[in-house]
Amino acid sequence: MPELSAHSLEVTETLISGARFLVILVAARLLAETMVRFKLPTILGELVAGLIVGISGLHLVVPPETQSALSEGFSAVLGGLAHVPGDVVGELYAETFPSVEAVASLGLFSLLFLTGLESDLDELVAVGGKATSVALAGVVLPFALGTAGLMAIFHVDLIPAVFAGASMTATSIAITASVFGELKMLRSSEGQIVLGAAVLDDILGIVILAVVVSLASSGSLTVGPIISLVAAAVVFVLAAIGLSRSAAPLFDKLIENLEATGEIVVASFVVLVVCAFTAAAIGLEAALGAFAAGLILSKSKHRHDIEQQVKPVVALFATIFFVLIGTKMDLSVMNPFDSSNREGLIIAAFLLVVAIGGKVAAGWLYASKEPTNRLVVGLGMMPRGEVGLIFLGLGSQAKLLSPSLEAAILLMVIGTTFLAPLLLRFVLSNGEQPAEAT
Amino acid sequence: MPELSAHSLEVTETLISGARFLVILVAARLLAETMVRFKLPTILGELVAGLIVGISGLHLVVPPETQSALSEGFSAVLGGLAHVPGDVVGELYAETFPSVEAVASLGLFSLLFLTGLESDLDELVAVGGKATSVALAGVVLPFALGTAGLMAIFHVDLIPAVFAGASMTATSIAITASVFGELKMLRSSEGQIVLGAAVLDDILGIVILAVVVSLASSGSLTVGPIISLVAAAVVFVLAAIGLSRSAAPLFDKLIENLEATGEIVVASFVVLVVCAFTAAAIGLEAALGAFAAGLILSKSKHRHDIEQQVKPVVALFATIFFVLIGTKMDLSVMNPFDSSNREGLIIAAFLLVVAIGGKVAAGWLYASKEPTNRLVVGLGMMPRGEVGLIFLGLGSQAKLLSPSLEAAILLMVIGTTFLAPLLLRFVLSNGEQPAEAT
Repeated sequence: MPELSAHSLEVTETLISGARFLVILVAARLLAETMVRFKLPTILGELVAGLIVGISGLHLVVPPETQSALSEGFSAVLGGLAHVPGDVVGELYAETFPSVEAVASLGLFSLLFLTGLESDLDELVAVGGKATSVALAGVVLPFALGTAGLMAIFHVDLIPAVFAGASMTATSIAITASVFGELKMLRSSEGQIVLGAAVLDDILGIVILAVVVSLASSGSLTVGPIISLVAAAVVFVLAAIGLSRSAAPLFDKLIENLEATGEIVVASFVVLVVCAFTAAAIGLEAALGAFAAGLILSKSKHRHDIEQQVKPVVALFATIFFVLIGTKMDLSVMNPFDSSNREGLIIAAFLLVVAIGGKVAAGWLYASKEPTNRLVVGLGMMPRGEVGLIFLGLGSQAKLLSPSLEAAILLMVIGTTFLAPLLLRFVLSNGEQPAEAT
Repeated sequence: MPELSAHSLEVTETLISGARFLVILVAARLLAETMVRFKLPTILGELVAGLIVGISGLHLVVPPETQSALSEGFSAVLGGLAHVPGDVVGELYAETFPSVEAVASLGLFSLLFLTGLESDLDELVAVGGKATSVALAGVVLPFALGTAGLMAIFHVDLIPAVFAGASMTATSIAITASVFGELKMLRSSEGQIVLGAAVLDDILGIVILAVVVSLASSGSLTVGPIISLVAAAVVFVLAAIGLSRSAAPLFDKLIENLEATGEIVVASFVVLVVCAFTAAAIGLEAALGAFAAGLILSKSKHRHDIEQQVKPVVALFATIFFVLIGTKMDLSVMNPFDSSNREGLIIAAFLLVVAIGGKVAAGWLYASKEPTNRLVVGLGMMPRGEVGLIFLGLGSQAKLLSPSLEAAILLMVIGTTFLAPLLLRFVLSNGEQPAEAT
């Protein structure tokens, strides 16, 4: 084998990175377009794209920690183009993987920032009481039932059980809002309650995430650290909500005094990084900081501009985050024809039932004088989407979950996200249309 | 020393990455804002920011290949926040550096894509003859004089001499356009000639870059490969220009058929990555592919939307590319009080004279019936800005340049970028204002 020059290694790395980006982006788009045509959320397409190109499928995108081998045909093609042997491709592939993960993290942080930015805190206050009941019940029921059930029935350890329970807490605002919007129900009482509750349970879910990941990674669940972390997370989010009133005007003043171009997006990212850094420094997840940064700037006069400029970053890079989650999943642990997989499948079914049942039950747990369709509220809270996946991504990064529990959580997210729009459309087309509230 | 858990290493990595992003973005913005207030290009601020936070200054951003140590105070602060010893911070700092370099490359590719996208090929045709003379002379003179002078007078080796010569070829469209715009001269004959020539010499410069980096990295400059690479690069660019007429409408049709959100930015990046991959696969620089992708889409109906969505990515990440260039530069090799540095300083002065003289001379080398201010044309072609820096970045990545030659190229870029607006304003306020063309 001839010795390879630094230049030919560099060319090989460029080809590998390029091919990896292409496979991820093209697969994600193809599947997302397919989902849109079936009126299903695009995030499902991104996950399925990951399953297809990842270790459950074609082995074109292979995260090194999965210990799976890159597709031989793919290595051979890249090696042929770069004039290097296929095994060199495999090595460089693993070596350069952290760069795509770095870009995926950027996508995750941008997405959480955008989620915070789009949280309408005033809307939350307007539907306050009802939304709070629905959100709290919808967080507590799946969390408690899921954790207890996994431990009692399936003898899962405390930490992974808490983690799986926590991954069922947060409703996906984006998916819910798009389904209600499409059904022209965003301004109905049900739509308002669901959106308010979804904002609130995102906050609760991300607080739980920040606490659970920190605790679980340090390996012990003891009362002292739990209390101090929960307190820190709650104070952090309350501080962000408080700051949205005082710091956002300061931010606006800063923006108006900046003259170099690109000021809005760069200043927003500086706020994002400061908050993520602060969260990490006080022992919380950096992801909570990114979300808090969005909450702070949600009161900015430039909110619309910030959104417009952060969206392309999210479209490019959050996609990569979701596809990578799919690539890491080993669906063979869910093969129903292998009897050793039976327990994993039953766990997946259990999580799905708890995830649906917990949110639907929450739809009955609020007081209302006017008649509202409680089933619609419950189903509206059902899709887990991105926050559930962020749990899954961070949990699998921290190696907290067994492969079958990972796959079960993924199926729970896919199932709720897939079923929610279908069930909502079914219920609404069969029942009477609820009155539009003003 | 207590053994560190995976979790505490992860927290440390998060804090390091966060702090590094913050230092880069905040320093770049502070200096860019300062430059804007002196009516100087922001790119100067980004370079100076790099010099200040990098190995010539505070050692807060330290590329591992420079073998410089991270600031002890900075490591101590981060170590204190993460509860790990300072030397662990240093190790993790070096380990995580590739992720910031990956983001910087994304910025570079996005910037070249945007440069191609904003190249108005029709405008180039309109001022065709004059712009072509100015562009060709402005490329050949600095390239030939620079390379020959470095070899004959300073006994620099062939490859670094060619590289330094090539780094002087391309005018920065962005800087030139902003200075002429500010002086309300964009639509004058001089402005039109300069912009046309700048588009053309960007194309020539990036072709030269693609050829020189490939040849220089493979270590030999022989006639056969030069001819085949130049041919490949020319065919590649011509193909892109040709495709801008046929492929751009196809792209538009595709966009109109896509329904999932974020379609414009994702589809544009897919084109970008395909072109960069193709360039790399046929032995050219991936950077040329990114530029060609922009040329292709410059005829798209959605060009404006593409620009709007790519600009935030450029604002965030190209900044990082330019700051990193500054951080790698060891200005101590230019300390005038150390007599061993004299030759380096003389080389820097030589490059600056050739870079200015070559472009100013090119201002006299076109035929025109109407009277135009040839000094204004020459000075307008002077700022090298981003393309010169891209040369420098790629050359230093490929380890082709000695530290003093690297610093000399940087000073040439800074000098021409700094002097061009000042000299243009001086000449225009002292001479008669040239007539505005319609």
